[in-house]
Amino acid sequence: MRESELLANIYARSGDLGAAFPSIVVGPGDDCAVVKVGGAAGGELLLLKVDQVVERRHFLSSTRVHLIARKAIARAVSDIAAMGGSPRWSLASGVLPPEYPHADDLCRRLAEWGRHWDAPVVGGDIATGAPGNMLSLSITVVGVPHPARGPVLRSTARPGDEVWVTGSIGNSVPSEHHLTFEPRLTEALRLCDALGADLHAMIDVSDGLGRDAGRVAEASGVRVVIDAERVPLSPGATDCLAAAGHGEDYELVFCVAPGAQVPDVGATRIGRVEAGSGCVLVMGDGRVVEAGELGWDH
Amino acid sequence: MRESELLANIYARSGDLGAAFPSIVVGPGDDCAVVKVGGAAGGELLLLKVDQVVERRHFLSSTRVHLIARKAIARAVSDIAAMGGSPRWSLASGVLPPEYPHADDLCRRLAEWGRHWDAPVVGGDIATGAPGNMLSLSITVVGVPHPARGPVLRSTARPGDEVWVTGSIGNSVPSEHHLTFEPRLTEALRLCDALGADLHAMIDVSDGLGRDAGRVAEASGVRVVIDAERVPLSPGATDCLAAAGHGEDYELVFCVAPGAQVPDVGATRIGRVEAGSGCVLVMGDGRVVEAGELGWDH
Repeated sequence: MRESELLANIYARSGDLGAAFPSIVVGPGDDCAVVKVGGAAGGELLLLKVDQVVERRHFLSSTRVHLIARKAIARAVSDIAAMGGSPRWSLASGVLPPEYPHADDLCRRLAEWGRHWDAPVVGGDIATGAPGNMLSLSITVVGVPHPARGPVLRSTARPGDEVWVTGSIGNSVPSEHHLTFEPRLTEALRLCDALGADLHAMIDVSDGLGRDAGRVAEASGVRVVIDAERVPLSPGATDCLAAAGHGEDYELVFCVAPGAQVPDVGATRIGRVEAGSGCVLVMGDGRVVEAGELGWDH
Repeated sequence: MRESELLANIYARSGDLGAAFPSIVVGPGDDCAVVKVGGAAGGELLLLKVDQVVERRHFLSSTRVHLIARKAIARAVSDIAAMGGSPRWSLASGVLPPEYPHADDLCRRLAEWGRHWDAPVVGGDIATGAPGNMLSLSITVVGVPHPARGPVLRSTARPGDEVWVTGSIGNSVPSEHHLTFEPRLTEALRLCDALGADLHAMIDVSDGLGRDAGRVAEASGVRVVIDAERVPLSPGATDCLAAAGHGEDYELVFCVAPGAQVPDVGATRIGRVEAGSGCVLVMGDGRVVEAGELGWDH
Protein backbone atom coordinates (compact mmCIF):
# COMPACT_ATOMS: atom_id res chain seq x y z
CA MET A 1 0.00 0.00 0.00
CA ARG A 2 1.35 3.43 -0.95
CA GLU A 3 1.75 5.96 1.84
CA SER A 4 -0.77 8.24 0.16
CA GLU A 5 -3.38 5.47 0.31
CA LEU A 6 -2.54 4.81 3.94
CA LEU A 7 -3.03 8.48 4.74
CA ALA A 8 -6.32 8.59 2.85
CA ASN A 9 -7.57 5.69 4.98
CA ILE A 10 -6.41 7.38 8.17
CA TYR A 11 -8.18 10.61 7.26
CA ALA A 12 -11.36 8.75 6.35
CA ARG A 13 -11.38 6.88 9.67
CA SER A 14 -10.71 10.01 11.71
CA GLY A 15 -13.44 12.11 10.11
CA ASP A 16 -15.70 11.86 13.15
CA LEU A 17 -13.02 12.63 15.76
CA GLY A 18 -14.24 16.18 16.31
CA ALA A 19 -17.76 14.95 17.07
CA ALA A 20 -16.54 12.41 19.63
CA PHE A 21 -13.86 14.70 21.12
CA PRO A 22 -15.01 18.35 21.01
CA SER A 23 -11.52 19.55 21.98
CA ILE A 24 -10.30 18.51 18.50
CA VAL A 25 -10.80 21.49 16.20
CA VAL A 26 -8.82 20.07 13.25
CA GLY A 27 -7.85 16.40 13.18
CA PRO A 28 -5.49 14.51 10.87
CA GLY A 29 -5.07 15.87 7.34
CA ASP A 30 -3.82 19.45 7.66
CA ASP A 31 -0.25 20.61 8.32
CA CYS A 32 -0.95 20.38 12.05
CA ALA A 33 -3.77 19.25 14.28
CA VAL A 34 -5.57 22.04 16.13
CA VAL A 35 -6.86 21.32 19.63
CA LYS A 36 -8.47 23.40 22.32
CA VAL A 37 -7.09 23.45 25.86
CA GLY A 38 -9.66 23.90 28.62
CA GLY A 39 -13.36 23.37 28.29
CA ALA A 40 -14.42 26.99 28.07
CA ALA A 41 -15.41 28.74 24.85
CA GLY A 42 -12.38 30.98 25.25
CA GLY A 43 -9.94 28.06 25.58
CA GLU A 44 -6.50 28.44 24.04
CA LEU A 45 -5.75 26.70 20.75
CA LEU A 46 -2.67 24.56 20.25
CA LEU A 47 -1.03 23.22 17.10
CA LEU A 48 0.31 19.65 17.28
CA LYS A 49 2.63 18.12 14.72
CA VAL A 50 4.84 15.04 14.48
CA ASP A 51 7.30 14.44 11.66
CA GLN A 52 10.14 12.04 11.04
CA VAL A 53 13.46 11.81 9.27
CA VAL A 54 14.77 8.41 8.30
CA GLU A 55 18.29 7.50 7.13
CA ARG A 56 18.57 6.94 3.36
CA ARG A 57 15.16 8.50 2.95
CA HIS A 58 15.56 12.05 4.24
CA PHE A 59 19.32 12.14 4.70
CA LEU A 60 22.34 10.10 3.69
CA SER A 61 24.26 7.81 5.99
CA SER A 62 27.15 10.26 5.51
CA THR A 63 25.15 13.38 6.42
CA ARG A 64 26.67 15.20 9.37
CA VAL A 65 24.87 14.81 12.69
CA HIS A 66 24.16 18.49 13.21
CA LEU A 67 22.45 18.68 9.80
CA ILE A 68 20.36 15.58 10.55
CA ALA A 69 19.24 17.16 13.83
CA ARG A 70 18.61 20.47 12.09
CA LYS A 71 16.44 18.93 9.40
CA ALA A 72 14.50 16.84 11.91
CA ILE A 73 13.48 19.88 13.94
CA ALA A 74 13.09 22.21 10.96
CA ARG A 75 10.64 19.93 9.13
CA ALA A 76 8.19 19.94 12.03
CA VAL A 77 8.70 23.65 12.67
CA SER A 78 7.92 24.29 8.99
CA ASP A 79 4.49 22.73 9.50
CA ILE A 80 3.84 25.09 12.40
CA ALA A 81 4.79 27.96 10.05
CA ALA A 82 2.38 26.60 7.45
CA MET A 83 -0.47 27.13 9.94
CA GLY A 84 0.76 30.69 10.61
CA GLY A 85 1.80 29.63 14.10
CA SER A 86 4.74 29.85 16.44
CA PRO A 87 6.49 26.83 17.95
CA ARG A 88 6.60 26.55 21.74
CA TRP A 89 7.99 23.14 22.77
CA SER A 90 9.20 19.97 21.15
CA LEU A 91 9.76 16.31 22.00
CA ALA A 92 12.35 14.18 20.26
CA SER A 93 12.60 10.41 19.94
CA GLY A 94 15.03 8.33 17.98
CA VAL A 95 15.94 4.79 17.09
CA LEU A 96 19.70 4.46 16.78
CA PRO A 97 21.69 1.82 14.93
CA PRO A 98 23.55 -0.52 17.30
CA GLU A 99 26.82 0.96 18.59
CA TYR A 100 25.94 4.35 17.11
CA PRO A 101 28.89 6.59 18.00
CA HIS A 102 27.17 9.99 17.68
CA ALA A 103 24.26 9.54 20.11
CA ASP A 104 25.33 12.19 22.57
CA ASP A 105 26.19 14.70 19.85
CA LEU A 106 22.85 14.03 18.18
CA CYS A 107 20.94 14.75 21.40
CA ARG A 108 22.96 17.91 21.96
CA ARG A 109 22.26 19.14 18.42
CA LEU A 110 18.56 18.40 18.69
CA ALA A 111 18.45 20.46 21.88
CA GLU A 112 20.35 23.31 20.19
CA TRP A 113 18.12 23.45 17.13
CA GLY A 114 15.01 23.22 19.27
CA ARG A 115 16.11 26.29 21.22
CA HIS A 116 17.12 28.01 17.99
CA TRP A 117 13.53 27.97 16.72
CA ASP A 118 11.97 28.63 20.14
CA ALA A 119 10.87 25.01 20.33
CA PRO A 120 13.00 23.77 23.25
CA VAL A 121 13.14 19.99 23.58
CA VAL A 122 11.32 19.24 26.85
CA GLY A 123 11.32 15.46 26.59
CA GLY A 124 12.51 12.55 24.56
CA ASP A 125 13.28 8.91 24.22
CA ILE A 126 16.23 7.13 22.67
CA ALA A 127 16.20 3.43 21.84
CA THR A 128 18.86 1.30 20.23
CA GLY A 129 17.56 -0.76 17.35
CA ALA A 130 18.46 -4.28 16.39
CA PRO A 131 21.35 -4.93 13.98
CA GLY A 132 20.44 -3.58 10.55
CA ASN A 133 18.34 -0.73 11.91
CA MET A 134 18.92 2.69 10.38
CA LEU A 135 18.83 5.98 12.26
CA SER A 136 15.39 7.54 12.48
CA LEU A 137 14.16 10.55 14.44
CA SER A 138 10.62 11.54 15.29
CA ILE A 139 9.98 15.13 16.33
CA THR A 140 6.80 16.47 17.86
CA VAL A 141 6.38 20.23 17.94
CA VAL A 142 3.63 21.95 19.92
CA GLY A 143 2.84 25.46 18.78
CA VAL A 144 0.30 28.23 19.09
CA PRO A 145 -1.61 29.83 16.23
CA HIS A 146 -1.40 33.51 15.35
CA PRO A 147 -3.36 35.28 18.11
CA ALA A 148 -5.46 37.39 15.72
CA ARG A 149 -5.66 35.34 12.51
CA GLY A 150 -5.96 31.92 14.15
CA PRO A 151 -4.80 28.72 12.45
CA VAL A 152 -4.43 29.01 8.67
CA LEU A 153 -5.82 25.80 7.20
CA ARG A 154 -5.31 24.29 3.78
CA SER A 155 -9.04 23.80 3.35
CA THR A 156 -10.14 27.41 3.09
CA ALA A 157 -8.98 28.58 -0.36
CA ARG A 158 -11.77 30.16 -2.44
CA PRO A 159 -12.33 30.65 -6.16
CA GLY A 160 -10.89 34.00 -7.18
CA ASP A 161 -7.96 33.81 -4.74
CA GLU A 162 -4.44 34.60 -5.86
CA VAL A 163 -1.85 31.85 -5.29
CA TRP A 164 1.57 32.89 -4.01
CA VAL A 165 4.78 31.13 -3.02
CA THR A 166 7.64 32.32 -0.82
CA GLY A 167 11.25 32.06 -1.97
CA SER A 168 12.02 29.75 -4.85
CA ILE A 169 11.46 26.17 -5.89
CA GLY A 170 13.61 23.30 -7.13
CA ASN A 171 17.04 21.70 -6.85
CA SER A 172 16.64 21.33 -3.10
CA VAL A 173 18.34 17.96 -2.70
CA PRO A 174 21.38 18.55 -4.95
CA SER A 175 21.92 22.02 -3.43
CA GLU A 176 21.45 20.65 0.13
CA HIS A 177 18.77 23.29 0.69
CA HIS A 178 16.75 20.42 2.22
CA LEU A 179 19.31 20.25 5.04
CA THR A 180 19.81 23.96 5.60
CA PHE A 181 16.46 25.63 4.87
CA GLU A 182 15.05 28.19 7.22
CA PRO A 183 11.43 27.41 8.17
CA ARG A 184 9.29 30.36 7.05
CA LEU A 185 8.15 31.34 10.54
CA THR A 186 8.83 35.06 10.16
CA GLU A 187 7.18 35.23 6.77
CA ALA A 188 4.10 33.36 8.02
CA LEU A 189 3.71 35.70 10.98
CA ARG A 190 4.01 38.75 8.74
CA LEU A 191 1.42 37.33 6.35
CA CYS A 192 -0.99 36.74 9.26
CA ASP A 193 -0.30 40.21 10.69
CA ALA A 194 -0.78 42.02 7.40
CA LEU A 195 -3.46 39.97 5.67
CA GLY A 196 -5.57 38.72 8.57
CA ALA A 197 -8.74 37.15 7.22
CA ASP A 198 -7.59 37.84 3.63
CA LEU A 199 -5.01 35.05 4.07
CA HIS A 200 -7.28 32.19 3.07
CA ALA A 201 -5.14 29.05 2.99
CA MET A 202 -1.52 27.97 3.40
CA ILE A 203 0.65 24.86 3.17
CA ASP A 204 4.38 24.17 3.15
CA VAL A 205 6.01 22.53 0.16
CA SER A 206 7.54 19.27 1.30
CA ASP A 207 6.41 16.81 -1.36
CA GLY A 208 6.54 19.16 -4.35
CA LEU A 209 4.81 22.38 -5.38
CA GLY A 210 2.43 20.47 -7.63
CA ARG A 211 1.44 17.83 -5.12
CA ASP A 212 1.16 20.24 -2.19
CA ALA A 213 -0.83 22.84 -4.13
CA GLY A 214 -3.00 19.90 -5.17
CA ARG A 215 -3.63 19.20 -1.48
CA VAL A 216 -4.90 22.74 -1.01
CA ALA A 217 -7.18 22.22 -4.02
CA GLU A 218 -8.50 18.93 -2.69
CA ALA A 219 -8.99 20.11 0.89
CA SER A 220 -10.69 23.33 -0.25
CA GLY A 221 -12.79 21.80 -3.03
CA VAL A 222 -11.34 24.16 -5.62
CA ARG A 223 -9.03 24.14 -8.65
CA VAL A 224 -5.55 25.62 -8.42
CA VAL A 225 -4.04 26.92 -11.67
CA ILE A 226 -0.31 27.65 -11.57
CA ASP A 227 1.37 29.70 -14.31
CA ALA A 228 4.60 27.72 -14.79
CA GLU A 229 6.50 30.70 -16.14
CA ARG A 230 5.83 32.65 -12.96
CA VAL A 231 7.25 30.01 -10.61
CA PRO A 232 10.54 31.34 -9.19
CA LEU A 233 13.23 28.70 -9.68
CA SER A 234 16.12 28.16 -7.29
CA PRO A 235 19.70 28.36 -8.60
CA GLY A 236 20.45 25.17 -10.48
CA ALA A 237 16.80 24.48 -11.26
CA THR A 238 16.03 25.02 -14.93
CA ASP A 239 12.82 23.09 -15.49
CA CYS A 240 9.61 24.14 -13.75
CA LEU A 241 8.03 20.71 -14.09
CA ALA A 242 10.95 19.00 -12.41
CA ALA A 243 11.17 21.74 -9.78
CA ALA A 244 7.45 21.48 -9.02
CA GLY A 245 7.80 17.73 -8.70
CA HIS A 246 10.88 17.25 -6.59
CA GLY A 247 9.82 18.74 -3.27
CA GLU A 248 11.79 19.36 -0.07
CA ASP A 249 11.57 23.12 -0.68
CA TYR A 250 9.83 23.98 2.61
CA GLU A 251 8.49 27.18 1.08
CA LEU A 252 4.96 28.37 1.83
CA VAL A 253 2.22 28.30 -0.80
CA PHE A 254 -0.63 30.56 0.22
CA CYS A 255 -3.93 31.78 -1.19
CA VAL A 256 -5.11 35.34 -0.63
CA ALA A 257 -8.24 37.31 -1.43
CA PRO A 258 -7.95 38.94 -4.87
CA GLY A 259 -6.25 42.32 -4.72
CA ALA A 260 -5.15 41.93 -1.10
CA GLN A 261 -1.92 43.77 -0.32
CA VAL A 262 0.63 41.00 0.24
CA PRO A 263 3.48 42.28 2.42
CA ASP A 264 7.05 42.03 1.21
CA VAL A 265 8.08 38.59 2.41
CA GLY A 266 9.94 37.62 -0.75
CA ALA A 267 6.88 35.92 -2.23
CA THR A 268 5.76 35.67 -5.84
CA ARG A 269 2.26 35.42 -7.28
CA ILE A 270 2.21 32.21 -9.30
CA GLY A 271 -1.42 31.48 -10.04
CA ARG A 272 -5.06 31.59 -9.12
CA VAL A 273 -7.86 29.58 -7.57
CA GLU A 274 -10.87 28.63 -9.69
CA ALA A 275 -14.05 26.69 -9.14
CA GLY A 276 -13.48 23.04 -9.93
CA SER A 277 -10.99 20.47 -8.73
CA GLY A 278 -7.37 19.46 -9.14
CA CYS A 279 -4.21 21.42 -9.67
CA VAL A 280 -2.64 22.19 -13.03
CA LEU A 281 0.51 23.84 -14.29
CA VAL A 282 -0.04 25.94 -17.43
CA MET A 283 3.22 25.85 -19.38
CA GLY A 284 4.65 28.70 -21.45
CA ASP A 285 3.40 27.10 -24.68
CA GLY A 286 -0.13 26.75 -23.31
CA ARG A 287 0.21 23.05 -22.50
CA VAL A 288 -1.69 22.08 -19.34
CA VAL A 289 -0.05 19.56 -17.00
CA GLU A 290 -1.94 17.88 -14.15
CA ALA A 291 0.25 18.87 -11.23
CA GLY A 292 -1.48 17.07 -8.40
CA GLU A 293 0.27 13.86 -9.29
CA LEU A 294 3.71 15.41 -9.55
CA GLY A 295 5.90 15.12 -6.50
CA TRP A 296 6.95 12.25 -4.38
CA ASP A 297 5.32 10.06 -1.83
CA HIS A 298 7.08 10.57 1.51
CA MET B 1 27.52 5.02 25.64
CA ARG B 2 24.74 3.48 27.73
CA GLU B 3 21.29 5.00 27.43
CA SER B 4 21.34 5.96 31.10
CA GLU B 5 24.53 7.98 30.52
CA LEU B 6 22.97 9.61 27.47
CA LEU B 7 19.95 10.62 29.53
CA ALA B 8 22.12 11.97 32.33
CA ASN B 9 23.88 14.20 29.79
CA ILE B 10 20.56 15.35 28.35
CA TYR B 11 19.22 16.25 31.79
CA ALA B 12 22.42 18.08 32.69
CA ARG B 13 22.29 20.14 29.49
CA SER B 14 18.62 21.01 29.90
CA GLY B 15 18.89 22.16 33.50
CA ASP B 16 18.57 25.82 32.55
CA LEU B 17 15.62 25.41 30.18
CA GLY B 18 13.11 26.79 32.67
CA ALA B 19 15.16 29.97 33.10
CA ALA B 20 15.40 30.55 29.35
CA PHE B 21 11.81 29.49 28.62
CA PRO B 22 9.50 30.40 31.51
CA SER B 23 6.66 28.34 30.02
CA ILE B 24 8.62 25.18 30.92
CA VAL B 25 7.60 24.18 34.44
CA VAL B 26 9.29 20.75 34.39
CA GLY B 27 11.79 19.85 31.66
CA PRO B 28 13.37 16.53 30.76
CA GLY B 29 13.83 14.02 33.58
CA ASP B 30 10.38 13.34 35.03
CA ASP B 31 7.68 11.01 33.66
CA CYS B 32 6.36 13.91 31.56
CA ALA B 33 7.36 17.47 30.85
CA VAL B 34 5.05 20.11 32.32
CA VAL B 35 4.49 23.30 30.34
CA LYS B 36 2.25 26.30 30.79
CA VAL B 37 -0.03 27.47 28.00
CA GLY B 38 -0.65 31.21 27.82
CA GLY B 39 1.45 33.87 29.44
CA ALA B 40 -0.84 34.64 32.36
CA ALA B 41 -0.23 33.41 35.90
CA GLY B 42 -3.41 31.36 35.62
CA GLY B 43 -2.30 29.60 32.42
CA GLU B 44 -3.29 25.97 31.97
CA LEU B 45 -0.68 23.28 32.53
CA LEU B 46 -0.06 20.52 30.02
CA LEU B 47 1.80 17.23 30.32
CA LEU B 48 3.94 16.21 27.32
CA LYS B 49 5.38 12.75 26.82
CA VAL B 50 6.96 10.81 23.97
CA ASP B 51 7.75 7.12 24.14
CA GLN B 52 8.71 4.45 21.66
CA VAL B 53 8.37 0.75 21.01
CA VAL B 54 10.94 -0.97 18.82
CA GLU B 55 10.74 -4.45 17.29
CA ARG B 56 12.86 -7.06 19.12
CA ARG B 57 13.26 -4.62 21.98
CA HIS B 58 9.72 -4.04 23.25
CA PHE B 59 7.87 -6.66 21.22
CA LEU B 60 8.68 -9.70 19.11
CA SER B 61 8.57 -9.80 15.34
CA SER B 62 5.71 -12.27 15.80
CA THR B 63 3.66 -10.07 18.17
CA ARG B 64 0.23 -9.32 16.79
CA VAL B 65 -0.31 -5.85 15.38
CA HIS B 66 -3.12 -4.87 17.71
CA LEU B 67 -0.92 -5.69 20.73
CA ILE B 68 1.98 -3.69 19.31
CA ALA B 69 -0.34 -0.71 18.83
CA ARG B 70 -1.82 -1.23 22.30
CA LYS B 71 1.56 -1.28 24.00
CA ALA B 72 2.79 1.74 22.06
CA ILE B 73 -0.11 3.90 23.22
CA ALA B 74 -0.33 2.38 26.71
CA ARG B 75 3.31 3.08 27.56
CA ALA B 76 2.95 6.81 26.95
CA VAL B 77 -0.45 6.90 28.66
CA SER B 78 1.12 5.21 31.68
CA ASP B 79 3.52 8.14 32.02
CA ILE B 80 0.58 10.54 32.05
CA ALA B 81 -0.94 8.40 34.84
CA ALA B 82 2.36 8.58 36.72
CA MET B 83 1.94 12.38 36.89
CA GLY B 84 -1.64 11.96 38.15
CA GLY B 85 -2.91 13.32 34.84
CA SER B 86 -5.42 12.51 32.15
CA PRO B 87 -4.51 12.04 28.49
CA ARG B 88 -6.14 14.33 25.94
CA TRP B 89 -4.57 13.82 22.51
CA SER B 90 -1.85 11.77 20.91
CA LEU B 91 0.35 11.78 17.83
CA ALA B 92 1.76 8.61 16.30
CA SER B 93 4.73 8.10 14.01
CA GLY B 94 6.27 4.94 12.73
CA VAL B 95 9.06 3.58 10.60
CA LEU B 96 7.90 0.45 8.79
CA PRO B 97 10.01 -2.33 7.32
CA PRO B 98 9.92 -2.34 3.50
CA GLU B 99 6.82 -4.01 2.08
CA TYR B 100 5.27 -4.17 5.55
CA PRO B 101 1.88 -5.84 5.02
CA HIS B 102 0.10 -4.62 8.16
CA ALA B 103 0.51 -0.84 7.79
CA ASP B 104 -3.18 -0.05 7.44
CA ASP B 105 -4.17 -2.36 10.28
CA LEU B 106 -1.47 -0.84 12.48
CA CYS B 107 -2.78 2.70 11.87
CA ARG B 108 -6.33 1.57 12.56
CA ARG B 109 -5.32 -0.09 15.82
CA LEU B 110 -3.32 2.92 16.96
CA ALA B 111 -6.40 5.08 16.38
CA GLU B 112 -8.60 2.61 18.29
CA TRP B 113 -6.31 2.41 21.31
CA GLY B 114 -5.89 6.18 21.32
CA ARG B 115 -9.65 6.61 21.55
CA HIS B 116 -9.86 3.86 24.14
CA TRP B 117 -7.75 5.83 26.61
CA ASP B 118 -9.25 9.22 25.68
CA ALA B 119 -6.05 10.09 23.80
CA PRO B 120 -7.37 10.24 20.23
CA VAL B 121 -4.64 10.25 17.56
CA VAL B 122 -4.88 13.70 15.96
CA GLY B 123 -1.83 13.44 13.72
CA GLY B 124 0.91 11.16 12.57
CA ASP B 125 3.57 10.26 10.13
CA ILE B 126 4.46 6.95 8.54
CA ALA B 127 7.74 6.34 6.71
CA THR B 128 9.06 3.22 5.10
CA GLY B 129 12.57 2.34 6.17
CA ALA B 130 15.38 0.94 4.10
CA PRO B 131 15.85 -2.83 3.80
CA GLY B 132 16.82 -4.25 7.19
CA ASN B 133 14.83 -1.69 9.17
CA MET B 134 12.66 -3.01 11.98
CA LEU B 135 9.25 -1.68 12.94
CA SER B 136 9.36 1.18 15.42
CA LEU B 137 6.61 3.44 16.70
CA SER B 138 6.90 6.75 18.51
CA ILE B 139 3.88 7.99 20.44
CA THR B 140 3.44 11.46 21.86
CA VAL B 141 0.66 11.94 24.39
CA VAL B 142 -0.49 15.36 25.56
CA GLY B 143 -2.35 15.35 28.85
CA VAL B 144 -3.58 17.59 31.61
CA PRO B 145 -2.67 17.30 35.29
CA HIS B 146 -5.20 16.70 38.05
CA PRO B 147 -7.07 20.01 38.42
CA ALA B 148 -6.71 20.17 42.21
CA ARG B 149 -3.50 18.24 42.97
CA GLY B 150 -1.52 19.42 39.95
CA PRO B 151 1.30 17.35 38.42
CA VAL B 152 2.72 14.69 40.73
CA LEU B 153 6.49 14.77 40.28
CA ARG B 154 9.09 12.17 41.19
CA SER B 155 11.22 14.79 42.91
CA THR B 156 8.99 15.56 45.88
CA ALA B 157 9.25 12.51 48.17
CA ARG B 158 10.17 13.40 51.77
CA PRO B 159 11.80 11.50 54.63
CA GLY B 160 9.09 9.82 56.66
CA ASP B 161 6.86 9.09 53.65
CA GLU B 162 5.33 5.67 53.16
CA VAL B 163 6.11 3.96 49.85
CA TRP B 164 3.27 2.13 48.08
CA VAL B 165 2.84 0.23 44.84
CA THR B 166 -0.31 -0.57 42.87
CA GLY B 167 -1.06 -4.10 41.69
CA SER B 168 1.79 -6.58 41.64
CA ILE B 169 5.30 -6.88 40.28
CA GLY B 170 7.21 -9.40 38.20
CA ASN B 171 6.91 -11.94 35.39
CA SER B 172 5.58 -9.26 33.04
CA VAL B 173 7.29 -10.41 29.87
CA PRO B 174 6.66 -14.18 30.18
CA SER B 175 3.03 -13.54 31.16
CA GLU B 176 2.57 -10.98 28.34
CA HIS B 177 1.36 -8.47 30.95
CA HIS B 178 3.71 -6.02 29.17
CA LEU B 179 1.43 -6.23 26.13
CA THR B 180 -1.92 -6.15 27.89
CA PHE B 181 -1.49 -3.98 30.97
CA GLU B 182 -4.01 -1.33 31.83
CA PRO B 183 -2.36 2.04 32.48
CA ARG B 184 -3.23 3.08 36.04
CA LEU B 185 -5.18 6.20 35.07
CA THR B 186 -8.16 5.55 37.32
CA GLU B 187 -5.98 4.67 40.29
CA ALA B 188 -3.87 7.79 39.83
CA LEU B 189 -6.92 10.04 39.68
CA ARG B 190 -8.35 8.47 42.83
CA LEU B 191 -5.05 8.93 44.62
CA CYS B 192 -4.98 12.61 43.63
CA ASP B 193 -8.63 13.07 44.61
CA ALA B 194 -8.27 11.41 47.98
CA LEU B 195 -4.74 12.35 49.02
CA GLY B 196 -4.29 15.79 47.46
CA ALA B 197 -1.11 17.35 48.84
CA ASP B 198 -0.41 14.20 50.90
CA LEU B 199 0.47 12.41 47.65
CA HIS B 200 4.11 13.45 47.54
CA ALA B 201 5.70 11.66 44.59
CA MET B 202 4.84 9.09 41.93
CA ILE B 203 6.48 7.18 39.06
CA ASP B 204 5.47 4.26 36.87
CA VAL B 205 7.49 1.06 36.88
CA SER B 206 8.83 0.50 33.40
CA ASP B 207 12.49 -0.36 34.01
CA GLY B 208 12.02 -2.29 37.26
CA LEU B 209 10.74 -1.50 40.74
CA GLY B 210 14.28 -1.12 42.04
CA ARG B 211 15.53 1.16 39.31
CA ASP B 212 12.39 3.29 39.19
CA ALA B 213 12.12 3.67 42.96
CA GLY B 214 15.79 4.62 42.78
CA ARG B 215 14.85 7.41 40.39
CA VAL B 216 12.40 8.80 42.94
CA ALA B 217 15.18 8.64 45.54
CA GLU B 218 17.64 10.42 43.28
CA ALA B 219 15.23 13.10 42.07
CA SER B 220 13.97 13.76 45.61
CA GLY B 221 17.36 13.61 47.35
CA VAL B 222 16.15 10.90 49.72
CA ARG B 223 16.67 7.20 50.45
CA VAL B 224 13.95 4.68 49.58
CA VAL B 225 13.89 1.51 51.66
CA ILE B 226 11.73 -1.31 50.31
CA ASP B 227 10.76 -4.28 52.45
CA ALA B 228 11.17 -7.15 49.97
CA GLU B 229 8.71 -9.41 51.78
CA ARG B 230 5.96 -6.83 51.39
CA VAL B 231 6.30 -6.50 47.60
CA PRO B 232 3.25 -8.14 46.00
CA LEU B 233 4.41 -10.57 43.34
CA SER B 234 2.48 -11.33 40.17
CA PRO B 235 1.47 -14.91 39.38
CA GLY B 236 4.53 -16.78 38.15
CA ALA B 237 6.96 -14.45 39.94
CA THR B 238 8.60 -16.17 42.89
CA ASP B 239 11.68 -14.08 43.56
CA CYS B 240 11.38 -10.46 44.68
CA LEU B 241 14.85 -9.52 43.48
CA ALA B 242 14.16 -10.78 39.99
CA ALA B 243 10.69 -9.22 40.01
CA ALA B 244 12.06 -5.88 41.15
CA GLY B 245 14.68 -6.02 38.42
CA HIS B 246 12.78 -7.09 35.36
CA GLY B 247 10.47 -4.15 34.76
CA GLU B 248 7.66 -3.65 32.27
CA ASP B 249 5.12 -3.76 35.12
CA TYR B 250 3.60 -0.32 34.49
CA GLU B 251 2.42 -0.15 38.08
CA LEU B 252 2.60 3.09 40.06
CA VAL B 253 5.04 3.55 42.91
CA PHE B 254 3.98 6.46 45.09
CA CYS B 255 5.07 8.15 48.29
CA VAL B 256 2.55 9.52 50.75
CA ALA B 257 2.70 11.49 53.99
CA PRO B 258 2.96 9.14 56.98
CA GLY B 259 -0.45 8.00 58.20
CA ALA B 260 -2.33 9.44 55.22
CA GLN B 261 -5.47 7.46 54.37
CA VAL B 262 -4.64 5.77 51.06
CA PRO B 263 -7.86 4.97 49.16
CA ASP B 264 -8.57 1.44 48.04
CA VAL B 265 -6.91 1.31 44.64
CA GLY B 266 -5.42 -2.16 45.09
CA ALA B 267 -2.13 -0.76 46.37
CA THR B 268 0.26 -2.19 48.97
CA ARG B 269 2.58 -0.41 51.35
CA ILE B 270 6.07 -1.71 50.58
CA GLY B 271 8.49 0.62 52.30
CA ARG B 272 9.47 4.02 53.57
CA VAL B 273 11.44 7.11 52.68
CA GLU B 274 14.42 8.10 54.81
CA ALA B 275 16.99 10.85 54.78
CA GLY B 276 19.97 9.81 52.68
CA SER B 277 20.35 8.57 49.14
CA GLY B 278 19.84 5.50 47.01
CA CYS B 279 17.25 2.76 47.07
CA VAL B 280 17.63 -0.56 48.85
CA LEU B 281 15.62 -3.74 49.17
CA VAL B 282 15.72 -5.25 52.65
CA MET B 283 15.37 -9.00 52.25
CA GLY B 284 13.57 -11.34 54.66
CA ASP B 285 16.88 -12.46 56.18
CA GLY B 286 17.95 -8.87 56.81
CA ARG B 287 20.28 -8.72 53.83
CA VAL B 288 20.30 -5.27 52.18
CA VAL B 289 20.47 -5.12 48.37
CA GLU B 290 21.20 -1.92 46.49
CA ALA B 291 18.14 -1.75 44.27
CA GLY B 292 18.91 1.35 42.25
CA GLU B 293 21.08 -0.66 39.91
CA LEU B 294 18.57 -3.44 39.41
CA GLY B 295 16.42 -3.21 36.33
CA TRP B 296 17.22 -2.80 32.71
CA ASP B 297 18.35 0.03 30.54
CA HIS B 298 15.62 0.76 28.03
